Amino acid sequence: MTDYRRLRVALLGAGAVGSQVAALLRKHGDELADRAGAALDLVGIAVRNPDAPRDVDLPRELFTTDAEELIVGADIVIELMGGIEPAREQILLALGSGADVVTANKALLATHGPEIFDAADQVGASVYYEAAAAGAIPIIRPLRDSLAGDRVQRIMGIVNGTTNYILDRMDREGSDFGDVLADAQALGYAEADPTADIEGYDAAQKAAILASLAFHTAVPLEAVHREGITQVDKQMMDAARHAGFVIKLLAVCERLTGQPLENGAESPTGEAISVRVYPALIPREHPLASVHGANNAVFVQAEAAGNLMFYGAGAGGVQTASAVLGDVVSAARRHIAGGVGVGESTRANLPVLPIGRVTTRYQITLEVSDEPGVLATVAGTLSDGRVSIATVEQTVITEGNGEPGVARIVIGTHRALEQDLSETVDRLAASGVVGRVVSVLRVEGD
Amino acid sequence: MTDYRRLRVALLGAGAVGSQVAALLRKHGDELADRAGAALDLVGIAVRNPDAPRDVDLPRELFTTDAEELIVGADIVIELMGGIEPAREQILLALGSGADVVTANKALLATHGPEIFDAADQVGASVYYEAAAAGAIPIIRPLRDSLAGDRVQRIMGIVNGTTNYILDRMDREGSDFGDVLADAQALGYAEADPTADIEGYDAAQKAAILASLAFHTAVPLEAVHREGITQVDKQMMDAARHAGFVIKLLAVCERLTGQPLENGAESPTGEAISVRVYPALIPREHPLASVHGANNAVFVQAEAAGNLMFYGAGAGGVQTASAVLGDVVSAARRHIAGGVGVGESTRANLPVLPIGRVTTRYQITLEVSDEPGVLATVAGTLSDGRVSIATVEQTVITEGNGEPGVARIVIGTHRALEQDLSETVDRLAASGVVGRVVSVLRVEGD
Repeated sequence: MTDYRRLRVALLGAGAVGSQVAALLRKHGDELADRAGAALDLVGIAVRNPDAPRDVDLPRELFTTDAEELIVGADIVIELMGGIEPAREQILLALGSGADVVTANKALLATHGPEIFDAADQVGASVYYEAAAAGAIPIIRPLRDSLAGDRVQRIMGIVNGTTNYILDRMDREGSDFGDVLADAQALGYAEADPTADIEGYDAAQKAAILASLAFHTAVPLEAVHREGITQVDKQMMDAARHAGFVIKLLAVCERLTGQPLENGAESPTGEAISVRVYPALIPREHPLASVHGANNAVFVQAEAAGNLMFYGAGAGGVQTASAVLGDVVSAARRHIAGGVGVGESTRANLPVLPIGRVTTRYQITLEVSDEPGVLATVAGTLSDGRVSIATVEQTVITEGNGEPGVARIVIGTHRALEQDLSETVDRLAASGVVGRVVSVLRVEGD
Repeated sequence: MTDYRRLRVALLGAGAVGSQVAALLRKHGDELADRAGAALDLVGIAVRNPDAPRDVDLPRELFTTDAEELIVGADIVIELMGGIEPAREQILLALGSGADVVTANKALLATHGPEIFDAADQVGASVYYEAAAAGAIPIIRPLRDSLAGDRVQRIMGIVNGTTNYILDRMDREGSDFGDVLADAQALGYAEADPTADIEGYDAAQKAAILASLAFHTAVPLEAVHREGITQVDKQMMDAARHAGFVIKLLAVCERLTGQPLENGAESPTGEAISVRVYPALIPREHPLASVHGANNAVFVQAEAAGNLMFYGAGAGGVQTASAVLGDVVSAARRHIAGGVGVGESTRANLPVLPIGRVTTRYQITLEVSDEPGVLATVAGTLSDGRVSIATVEQTVITEGNGEPGVARIVIGTHRALEQDLSETVDRLAASGVVGRVVSVLRVEGD
């Protein structure tokens, strides 16, 4: 084996991903050295309990509870603990002592990204985070580097495997949300506390990271509009299928032009962005519609490149370890090559619009009393609210016995402003003729 | 605008891609500077005829016929002339004078890659070539960087838009090869001389580049087995559809283990690779089967990451310009960051096996005389040749009038060695009972 310069690699955390990273670093050490141009010595693994059971066998002497001692003196620090603290403070310590950092910590980057990137800039170090969005799918480098000369218009991502698994099974089996969730928990696809996944928090963190890269703008997590999938039921799934759609939890990052901004603010270029996570209808023939199970996919529309899609496993210990190790090799190559790290590109600094300023198409499902003039009232309310109707389908659900029965109206709208739509739906709900607003779903990708 | 360091960018060639690169560099200059951290000054465009008509309007004073003068003194040289010479010598001149190089020249990289990468290494410069394989699709960085910590097992790529356009139309319309080719030429999807596309030369160049990256091995173009699509006819298309397949021109790059090598050679790790381009049957449900029109897609199977797919436009001036400009921004960032360029990783140096040593499944279609004992003879010949039958379907094509009629036998095999298969097919053709070997196609992706 070539006599390579040796780099000291410290690992923080040995959970599902961390233990695989440690195992692969040891198993493929020679091969990785050939690729990196440097020997990667795993010098220690910091954990809370060195004697806890692990997914893979690792030598006991690698483990330590003293993260600080391990970090100081390392060339590359891999942070796979997750959570905000102590991950944040240990990453700052690593950067401060001259190490490059590899992390898969989406929660931390989505909330403290600018602080961490600034700290790296100060010392000319680099932060790598390919595993922080969409697991094993290479999406960070394509956005950060390959598309750096293009203008991304829109990203639509299925970036949470758990919710895609649940929605896909509901779609394919006609099952109920609760049943599939319970099954997903039993099979290990969903956590005991599934909130982060099913309420869209995980997807929102990834959306903030993807939008920051795509639009060269530090997007704070609070600016991401977030809705989960707990309201999606069998009835909505059936209606979507009937209309040629499938419901997916989407992370949508969009560049908007020509919109006046609120409170007098205006971007220098007249552009703004929107970042949002919600269950949306997408046409069956859209490439994202055929992303099944716990897989992820990111669909990117760019001005010059056109439509691109990146598809693969969105989670899993060994899959995510692949992305982490790619970053470790990149960090090692940079160490050998010299020079300072390339900072994050956030100079576009575009304003993030609130959800009310976004326009999409909608599908509104109402239960109304089946009597003359109801459709006219509904149509009039929509028109008054600047919501233009594209398609209408009315079906009788319950025949009345002398009294008015119940009918269902499904309305597909043209593109409408979310604020207009939302106010209009409130007026419909309050009108005497609408018994129940069954669902309001955005339509994306058509 | 921030007062950035200014980098001198020289462009060689102003065809479909080059003119778009020049236009976008000028149009989005401020934005690109913000992303690169450096102002990108397009200082000149070397062409044979400065007065030739261009796809886009560019100032006459940018054009020059003196490429050498332009190259010397440039910080970044973008080579978009194509062809081997003078592209090779001008790239070497650029590297020699300290510039980073961006190129989309797949023919040059597939034939003179090592020479060019060595020249870059000598001076610590970098060569970027995201546009050289699969056009606008970011595939080079994912293979080179994101998957650098993983082990790629197999790549199956639809990397030539022209042939995919032709095969897709043949499949969807039931049209003849010649008709669709003529139409593709009229529509600009195929060149007047379509040889490079339809005979698989273009795909073979891209396969060499992808395999070199994936397997950390300099793969010479001569080691790529190449077959084109000119033999694919309506009958083969129909038979494929009937059997649940679609025919695609695939670039297959595969890691093979446990195979004894010919002529006593053996790789240190016991591993070898195969790189091949041919029309193959893939199952309708495979993600590659739904890549329509002139689009490209690269399906990657990696040990840890699992299955990944990258999809998008494989060609087109403005689409390819996106990939080129991403490289220009990367080159500028590296210039600003300092340090030397990261060289190509080719230290694995795996042997490339000839096609005869590859195993795949096959589908063999024969016309035989419809008489007793024929199937037994065919089956016996296959068995003698170590080709194991998985499925057989025999149908009568022509009823005999007293004499034997003609029957068609379609045989699906288990995995067999190409050399065994090929010898067996020769024996079948020479046997008295087989009237015609209609087709022999490999099955991939099942």
